[in-house]
Amino acid sequence: MKSMILLLLIPAMVFCTVAHGTERPTFPMETSDAYDPSRVAAYRGDHADIYAHIEQSIESHTRALQRWMRQPSISAQNVGIQEMAEMLRSDLERIGFQEAALVPTDGHPGVWGVYDAGAEKTLLVYMMYDVQPVNPEDWDSPPFEANIVDHELGKVIMARGATNQKGPERAFLNALESIIAVKGTLPVNLMVAAEGEEELGSPHYPQIVDAYEKRMREADGVLFPMSVQAPDGKTSMFLGVKGILYFEMESRGGDWGGPQNSEIHGSYKAIVDSPTLRLVQAIASLTSRDGNTIMVPGYYEGIRPPTPEEQQLINGVARNQDQGQMKQAIGVARFIDDLSGTEAIVEALYMPTLNVDGLWSGYTGEGVKTILPHIATAKVDSRLPVGLDPDEALAKIRYHLDSNGFEDIVIRKLSGYPAAQTSVHADLTQAVISVYNKYSKGLSIQPRIAGSAPFYQFTDRLGLPLVPAGMGHGRGAHAPNEIYLVEPGPDIPVAGLAGIEKSYVDLLYALAGE
Amino acid sequence: MKSMILLLLIPAMVFCTVAHGTERPTFPMETSDAYDPSRVAAYRGDHADIYAHIEQSIESHTRALQRWMRQPSISAQNVGIQEMAEMLRSDLERIGFQEAALVPTDGHPGVWGVYDAGAEKTLLVYMMYDVQPVNPEDWDSPPFEANIVDHELGKVIMARGATNQKGPERAFLNALESIIAVKGTLPVNLMVAAEGEEELGSPHYPQIVDAYEKRMREADGVLFPMSVQAPDGKTSMFLGVKGILYFEMESRGGDWGGPQNSEIHGSYKAIVDSPTLRLVQAIASLTSRDGNTIMVPGYYEGIRPPTPEEQQLINGVARNQDQGQMKQAIGVARFIDDLSGTEAIVEALYMPTLNVDGLWSGYTGEGVKTILPHIATAKVDSRLPVGLDPDEALAKIRYHLDSNGFEDIVIRKLSGYPAAQTSVHADLTQAVISVYNKYSKGLSIQPRIAGSAPFYQFTDRLGLPLVPAGMGHGRGAHAPNEIYLVEPGPDIPVAGLAGIEKSYVDLLYALAGE
Repeated sequence: MKSMILLLLIPAMVFCTVAHGTERPTFPMETSDAYDPSRVAAYRGDHADIYAHIEQSIESHTRALQRWMRQPSISAQNVGIQEMAEMLRSDLERIGFQEAALVPTDGHPGVWGVYDAGAEKTLLVYMMYDVQPVNPEDWDSPPFEANIVDHELGKVIMARGATNQKGPERAFLNALESIIAVKGTLPVNLMVAAEGEEELGSPHYPQIVDAYEKRMREADGVLFPMSVQAPDGKTSMFLGVKGILYFEMESRGGDWGGPQNSEIHGSYKAIVDSPTLRLVQAIASLTSRDGNTIMVPGYYEGIRPPTPEEQQLINGVARNQDQGQMKQAIGVARFIDDLSGTEAIVEALYMPTLNVDGLWSGYTGEGVKTILPHIATAKVDSRLPVGLDPDEALAKIRYHLDSNGFEDIVIRKLSGYPAAQTSVHADLTQAVISVYNKYSKGLSIQPRIAGSAPFYQFTDRLGLPLVPAGMGHGRGAHAPNEIYLVEPGPDIPVAGLAGIEKSYVDLLYALAGE
Repeated sequence: MKSMILLLLIPAMVFCTVAHGTERPTFPMETSDAYDPSRVAAYRGDHADIYAHIEQSIESHTRALQRWMRQPSISAQNVGIQEMAEMLRSDLERIGFQEAALVPTDGHPGVWGVYDAGAEKTLLVYMMYDVQPVNPEDWDSPPFEANIVDHELGKVIMARGATNQKGPERAFLNALESIIAVKGTLPVNLMVAAEGEEELGSPHYPQIVDAYEKRMREADGVLFPMSVQAPDGKTSMFLGVKGILYFEMESRGGDWGGPQNSEIHGSYKAIVDSPTLRLVQAIASLTSRDGNTIMVPGYYEGIRPPTPEEQQLINGVARNQDQGQMKQAIGVARFIDDLSGTEAIVEALYMPTLNVDGLWSGYTGEGVKTILPHIATAKVDSRLPVGLDPDEALAKIRYHLDSNGFEDIVIRKLSGYPAAQTSVHADLTQAVISVYNKYSKGLSIQPRIAGSAPFYQFTDRLGLPLVPAGMGHGRGAHAPNEIYLVEPGPDIPVAGLAGIEKSYVDLLYALAGE
């Protein structure tokens, strides 16, 4: 997902833990036990006939990925959206889904599909069919040609959407095709609930859930197909996301003071209020001097420390992490308060943030221009751990501003949804771990990531566990030269397209207990 | 001057004052006496022969103004600068200046001229020959055609530079031509020290003074030709300007923390410092919550209250002012602390300011983008009353930031010069008042304006009184449709070009005591 994809870079880096500062709570670890995913028995099923079908079909399976990636579907620019939605819908139909329909929303349509195998278990598959915009001149191979390109890791498909998210999703459908070709049906029932606005922040996904909520509740869990292997073959997993509140703050001259209609000469500052300084003071009032503790009363009230289960996951992460490498990868010299170890991990994953994404007012060109601007604006986001609802967070910020005399600061909410958390002990989670353990060593499990995705629709609204999962490796989401590795080089211990599809086969049978 | 021209709009509006707030000093008035400029005897000289020559020459005099205005001289774009400098130089030569030379500087050249009349008194004339850029499509008449246009006030010349400052300056030279034509010489010696970078903030004017400092010191005062009449005929005058300190503040990720190389994903805020919040906190530390009191220790220390002379001027201004009209003209609903009367005037003219002219960081486009920017920048200016030197002000700000842990905030000084003040009792001032009183009623004198101009070069460095002066009316400086009124309509009690030139004739004779 938009925020998530970027954060998938993080698992390999690892986070670090506990809050310092005047008002930030501290969540000290109460155990030194670490969750060891290698103790989950590796999946032992062997579906050689299906694997063989995959190997034989790998050329047409590769072409299926290319067909999807060659269809542009840029949600932000409304390019190819209808075509891609229909391509997904008709693919589901061809595979054998009894239901395969477009879902109208106030934005781009969703796609709904049901494969009723008469099985005991039902897996809901979340998909996104849209992609980020491109600057074609920045690409080594045209972003919508989906060429096979030689890469240091092996043969890759280079295309917008290669790893985010068409590659993993279409690989999953390929696996279904091979299972059905060999076995006649699937080991579990499937529901697909896809959207075409993930890159826009999933504004209308709730409408898709509205349409099929009762059906979705019948599912046992939610899979988001994804490629989670690092180039060294290690897999990683995260079981939760923070929520987010995104808003603009604006100060504008008005009855309270300041220039009302336009900028005025800077010398008037002596007797005229500055909306820019007012915004600066209002933002400053939200945090401590160092910018790292949120001074809004009650902001930390509802959040909770890591559960014993999560503490064990955190300890596991801490053992694998290389903080020096992580800092280098992010491009920072130090973390706040020089945090390290589990303290840094807990801080990253369990504390809400207040961040200024953008800020602008007045003259921003070269040299000297002396004006008193009449308007100043900031874009602010707050990442919300479990327990801090976005509307509650916004109400606390509004109350804080009002009680400090900033009633005139306008807040425009642009986006907001709560956090989501899945347990490592959920059946779906355990099944995924067992499959990873079959193919790879060194699984790292984060209890959650610091980023956001609207998974609460599944975890909170529908009460389902959600796991983003899949073998394989891709990179370059939201960037030029996005790739998905389909045929690893001889020394690269990563699953290629065939391996990825086999792991999806295993996962479905593991879920079915077969 | 750049800042001054805009502020010439202010005299008609009037200011208002005393400081409130936690730390701002208050400068209560100690007298209710008001300076009454009408008590200065109107100039009684009558130079009918010269006036007649002006009337007879008015067509060619008007063409002389048009010739200047048709020569573009946009300093910011280096358009026509050399041509205009040479036009001014050769005009001085033709008028009879014994010295008329270009003055090389590290920027655009200055122009130096000396007319030695063998007289007792010497007047230094400050001129600027550059103009602001134009957007020709915004003009009713092309900005460099200098057409005579019918206006509600009468016949005007519409051109870039019409009132700022070619009209008044060339009118002054016309007056010299008529005096010399009739009398053979001038009643005072003249020095002209012109620059072509006023619209850039006069960065190299000190070099022009360097070249002729000793000669300039021989002058008795400095005149800056200007049109000071309102449409109702009333004249106004100001005797001082504030200084200014203009700098950029920047926070950038580095060893202290924050992203070092580029923006990073916004979710990292949980463990990575925000340069944007750091800049916000640093700026916030400079002022009180309301943005109106400067919290930098010692910032108000060196400034002084209005002298008894200045208090009388302030009381005079207060009697003429219409604060409601002034607020409407500026476009504000209220002044800080709801100041009014002399309190507002003293606040405007005697307090230093801290103003954010511009502010930018991160993503400023539409919608949602979640980033943690690595850099944040502000443009800040501080207007400096007499007693607060720009370098001293900057040192205090730097010390304050350092003592509050903001050592890493970079400050880049872009401009700075101190205030300037001339006494109402200076001979030059009194001569100007006497001439205004001859032609007009209702002179309003401000002790200073809230804006800035580098007049300290004359007042402090050379120890000379400086008065920007001249009858007539113009408007539209720095804007489209700039005009200079040359032939007022029948009911408009304002001096036209002939009247303006006659008043300059009178001023030179008044200075000579003739």
